[in-house]
Amino acid sequence: RINGKRLVSRLAELSRIGATPEGGCRRLALSDEDKQGRDWLVGQMQALGLTVKIDAIGNIVGILKGQEDGPAVVMGSHIDTVGTGGRFDGALGVIAGVEVLAALRDAGLQPKRDMAVIAFTNEEGARFHPDMLGSYVWAGGMSVAAAHAEKDADGAVLGTELARIGYHGPEQPGFLPAYAYLELHIEQGPILESEGGGLGAVTGIQGICWLELTLKGRPSHAGTTPMRYRKDPGLAAARINIFANELTRTIPGQLANSGVIRVQPGNVNVVPETVVMTLDLRNPLDAPLAEAEAAVRKFCAELSARDDIAISFRDLARFPATPFAEELIASVEASAAEFGLPIRRMISGAGHDAQMMSRLCPTAMVFIPSIGGLSHNPAELSTDEDMVAGANVLLSAAWRAANA
Amino acid sequence: RINGKRLVSRLAELSRIGATPEGGCRRLALSDEDKQGRDWLVGQMQALGLTVKIDAIGNIVGILKGQEDGPAVVMGSHIDTVGTGGRFDGALGVIAGVEVLAALRDAGLQPKRDMAVIAFTNEEGARFHPDMLGSYVWAGGMSVAAAHAEKDADGAVLGTELARIGYHGPEQPGFLPAYAYLELHIEQGPILESEGGGLGAVTGIQGICWLELTLKGRPSHAGTTPMRYRKDPGLAAARINIFANELTRTIPGQLANSGVIRVQPGNVNVVPETVVMTLDLRNPLDAPLAEAEAAVRKFCAELSARDDIAISFRDLARFPATPFAEELIASVEASAAEFGLPIRRMISGAGHDAQMMSRLCPTAMVFIPSIGGLSHNPAELSTDEDMVAGANVLLSAAWRAANA
Ligand SMILES: NC(=O)NCCC(=O)O
Ligand SMILES: NC(=O)NCCC(=O)O
Repeated sequence: RINGKRLVSRLAELSRIGATPEGGCRRLALSDEDKQGRDWLVGQMQALGLTVKIDAIGNIVGILKGQEDGPAVVMGSHIDTVGTGGRFDGALGVIAGVEVLAALRDAGLQPKRDMAVIAFTNEEGARFHPDMLGSYVWAGGMSVAAAHAEKDADGAVLGTELARIGYHGPEQPGFLPAYAYLELHIEQGPILESEGGGLGAVTGIQGICWLELTLKGRPSHAGTTPMRYRKDPGLAAARINIFANELTRTIPGQLANSGVIRVQPGNVNVVPETVVMTLDLRNPLDAPLAEAEAAVRKFCAELSARDDIAISFRDLARFPATPFAEELIASVEASAAEFGLPIRRMISGAGHDAQMMSRLCPTAMVFIPSIGGLSHNPAELSTDEDMVAGANVLLSAAWRAANA
Repeated sequence: RINGKRLVSRLAELSRIGATPEGGCRRLALSDEDKQGRDWLVGQMQALGLTVKIDAIGNIVGILKGQEDGPAVVMGSHIDTVGTGGRFDGALGVIAGVEVLAALRDAGLQPKRDMAVIAFTNEEGARFHPDMLGSYVWAGGMSVAAAHAEKDADGAVLGTELARIGYHGPEQPGFLPAYAYLELHIEQGPILESEGGGLGAVTGIQGICWLELTLKGRPSHAGTTPMRYRKDPGLAAARINIFANELTRTIPGQLANSGVIRVQPGNVNVVPETVVMTLDLRNPLDAPLAEAEAAVRKFCAELSARDDIAISFRDLARFPATPFAEELIASVEASAAEFGLPIRRMISGAGHDAQMMSRLCPTAMVFIPSIGGLSHNPAELSTDEDMVAGANVLLSAAWRAANA
């Protein structure tokens, strides 16, 4: 069993790093706060007697030797946050993984297989694209070189930032073969809470399509230019935002968000010249997601022709819907049953490192409720009780896999 | 008569200060480039033998003594530009004023009244609000203290910036009583060109209402938050932009622009928390302008109630429609007739320092065509011929007033 008190206090310790006045956390990937969080984590792993390795994309791997050689049962998540992040997103999964190994050490138990916990780099995609970058590189979906070349919005280069904070490690990403992957995470949405609480056995992750659109019109004077002479990309951006939003009412399961809108030159009395905006489109199924994206592109093409606005597209992230492994989902359910904990199957709305790890090995996740469904928000909250319950299910499912 | 060659070359000299690679100018008010432009202008005025005075808001006044004491005939405009400005907006009016006085000196003529040219501070409103700030303070519409307290988008304080560039002068704004005010300016719109060229005798300036709206929703996760749980101020901003745009089709003469849209926190996968946007509403008549503003406010109130988005308003500028003085408009027409130049009456779409000066004395303006109607754009262009024609009309009308 997990030492609940220690789990909660370890999480509180990490939350102090990058704590914001609003009660949340700001540990953007490869920032100074992320470095502090990483240093702290490495210290915790070493104190536990784990072998700690860092790979070339900055993923932190803590390994507990098993009785036999061979692939490891891996747990993990991330400790980076979005700009307005909470204390639980990612951090819980990493710390619960550490606590699982601490609980085994406390109980004097050595698993048959190696067990490991990984903190993946830049899961949020808040600073560098794509999201889940560390696990994506780990799973071989993106080369180390390509990842190192990624730039943030201010032009800072990922590889340079990695070296700056001292986490450009010597290991090859993916160096540790995985037998199974398990991740505990907060739900980040309102579903479990609205069903009266209990845990979630995650059956997979919905498809994600992140687009960046650059709209170019013609800057002109807002007082002297008759409306019919204007080419206003701000107005076009507004129409696209509303169109994408309306798609969510006609395409089942469809979500859409425009989280970034940057207008140039940005003067009250100048009709905008350029707008950069993003769209985050998601759907549990790939076909309707593709339909939504196609509809957006068609709408943009028509708008472009009609209003003489040039519109170009760039992919920021594109991951298909990812089903998890049935036997591991069932093992999560069985673990919850052991502890008499209610659990229901559900799909994950957010992307997670598990989505990438499922390319390598059987994968599953455990969700705990998020109060008010809030996440990527300083008010993000889960109860101590739910955290401990989720960590116990993780412990049990991981132990079962490690000895199978 | 104006020395056309010298007018054109003086303008070319000023355009080199803050020149942009695109062929335009960037001399934001009280920036280093503005300081360079001001230093150059003061040098030109001094070389001409004018008495140069700077007031407490940085307005630069060059005075030619007349034969009698009493109020002066004032010409002027501004040398600040928007971020993506052109070479002609404002600069032409100031340089033409200087050239009028230079032409009188060349001809050995001394007017009955004093004559002066003023370069007003921060006309554009691109860096500090409101626009026409220097002439607004000059005309007593705003106190020096209030103007000094204005901040730009980065928080820089106007008074501090004024002192930094050395243009916090000793004179009281408005220290020079005005008998009449005349301003030459590019039209900044497509009307004169589309009518086959010729000059404009400006009958007045349309009403201006600049609003800043702050919309607050709730930041949440774009993958896990069902659409119905979201409070998205970005979507609300899009609806307001489109609504304001549609008003221009139902309210005669109405213009609308949303030139600033800033989204926080600005992450692909975070439903926005806060949007700051501006609206620039104009109409030649005050009543329909008030109707448009009321319609926007009503739409926002309904949107706010329906979508649970808090919306607050701040006035950035609010100037009523301003008719010019009939006798001075007629004098401008008569001056054009003297030179055999075609001229038509028209209203100004843009705000100008003349709008403020008309609070103090009879005021009129001369417009010359803007090629392609472009302004606030590096491609802003007027022909040398039109510039010289406009400056000759300015000379003639100013000379008439100065000897009346
Ligand atoms: N879990 C999480 O917030 N991941 C970031 C990627 C996403 O937006 O789903
Ligand atoms: N002339 C000019 O562009 N003035 C700036 C104020 C306005 O937007 O009308």
